[in-house]
Amino acid sequence: MRDVLRVPGGRRIDLTAYDASAVPAGPADKAAGLAATAALAPRLADLQERLYAASTAGDRRRILLVLQGMDTSGKGGTVKHVIGPFNPSGCRIRAFKAPTLEEQSHPFLWRIMQALPRPGEIGIFDRSHYEDVLIARVRELVPRSQLDRRYGQINRFEQSLAEDGVTIVKVFLHISYEAQRGRLLERLDNPAKHWKFNVGDIEERALWPAYREAYEIALERCATDEAPWYLVPADRKWYRNWAISKLLLEHLEALDPAYPPGDFDVDECRRRLLAT
Amino acid sequence: MRDVLRVPGGRRIDLTAYDASAVPAGPADKAAGLAATAALAPRLADLQERLYAASTAGDRRRILLVLQGMDTSGKGGTVKHVIGPFNPSGCRIRAFKAPTLEEQSHPFLWRIMQALPRPGEIGIFDRSHYEDVLIARVRELVPRSQLDRRYGQINRFEQSLAEDGVTIVKVFLHISYEAQRGRLLERLDNPAKHWKFNVGDIEERALWPAYREAYEIALERCATDEAPWYLVPADRKWYRNWAISKLLLEHLEALDPAYPPGDFDVDECRRRLLAT
Repeated sequence: MRDVLRVPGGRRIDLTAYDASAVPAGPADKAAGLAATAALAPRLADLQERLYAASTAGDRRRILLVLQGMDTSGKGGTVKHVIGPFNPSGCRIRAFKAPTLEEQSHPFLWRIMQALPRPGEIGIFDRSHYEDVLIARVRELVPRSQLDRRYGQINRFEQSLAEDGVTIVKVFLHISYEAQRGRLLERLDNPAKHWKFNVGDIEERALWPAYREAYEIALERCATDEAPWYLVPADRKWYRNWAISKLLLEHLEALDPAYPPGDFDVDECRRRLLAT
Repeated sequence: MRDVLRVPGGRRIDLTAYDASAVPAGPADKAAGLAATAALAPRLADLQERLYAASTAGDRRRILLVLQGMDTSGKGGTVKHVIGPFNPSGCRIRAFKAPTLEEQSHPFLWRIMQALPRPGEIGIFDRSHYEDVLIARVRELVPRSQLDRRYGQINRFEQSLAEDGVTIVKVFLHISYEAQRGRLLERLDNPAKHWKFNVGDIEERALWPAYREAYEIALERCATDEAPWYLVPADRKWYRNWAISKLLLEHLEALDPAYPPGDFDVDECRRRLLAT
């Protein structure tokens, strides 16, 4: 999946050319997709435990999954479904909202630093520092010169993380304008979902082309070897969950974390324990 | 379960009088226990979503599950199994280890404050501020006068949390001396579990009576109406998981969180959305 979904960096891509309902390299249909996703769970759980175990012996490696996408693209749903197989104690999940007053008083990467996964953990960001070049660009929240510097700041920051053992997996959840309309209508039609609906969501839709452009620029400038971007078509939730689970599995397999050997004499410990 | 497992405060209980392999008010056997636990999941998930939804409309209520118990009593396993039904985004899990240098430079409740659940969340502490009257008592880490003040400090702290909307559920996982030996032996017998084993665990067993006494005193002095202690027999993992799931369910049901009504005109929003 890494090769299939990876965004080429350094050049502008046209997001309108990507079909959000496509299922590249995916299972044949929804039923097959759900089964394939469930089948990945034991291996994901095993690798996560190994990653965590390795950290207790000094291995600093860890994973950071960054989720970005338009409203209703399924960032929250991805967290819920993709994290399912893992031990929640080893996951560090953070949803970034509008910055607090304290966060605003710091450089934009400050709050990101607070939320990073520790060695052995799997970190998941629901939104991230990319908001600072997305909504910040569309809404002109900072002067253009400051905004333009942020791409380089992000790349240098991510390179430092990679050097410290963080495997960064950045996922852009690509939904269509039509799918977003349908998902917002679903929220309106279900009173139990009204708390997720915001009148501002309708107004934001008018800015869709501006957000798309902001994403295209972020993908162009920040898809690096140390921290690649993956474009996941997300109109079909079953494909989205399968593809991201598969991406995580591939990255965990590449890390190939091992249980550390004990630093004690097993027979001696057994004897002493049996004497208690 | 709340009435069955609740520890009476204000008087000393004798932990040796509690059978750690008992299954009070529980399912008949392991198979029934696993089925009963699985059957609780949908209701737990539904109530968690309501609790979170309510917080978006200003409801400050939240839950804090505190897990304490001897080594191998299953604190980590409880987190993994009991949290399963919940959306991990709404859970704030924290395992407390030996305090860092920075934590040591602050009052003992400082690091606890950093880890509290936000409104709408379910917080889970794997160990907690109680370590500061448990290992701190057994190992005499602080002068006795300072230690004795901590019980009152804990009670006042927990009362303030309760007043701010935190439902505190403190669980003592009660295992037997023999069960601990068996679980440590299992870790020795399985190389994939060696990373969980520590030679110091054997030496700590010699302090079992001192730890038991420290727990008895903490239960006596800190079982309050605002923050009750529950004693969960934990030799049988299936019972432990069922009982704690059931405790959480009862507390969530008592909160009875409701989806907040939308503050918008549904028909008007639908019209506007369809026009986009």
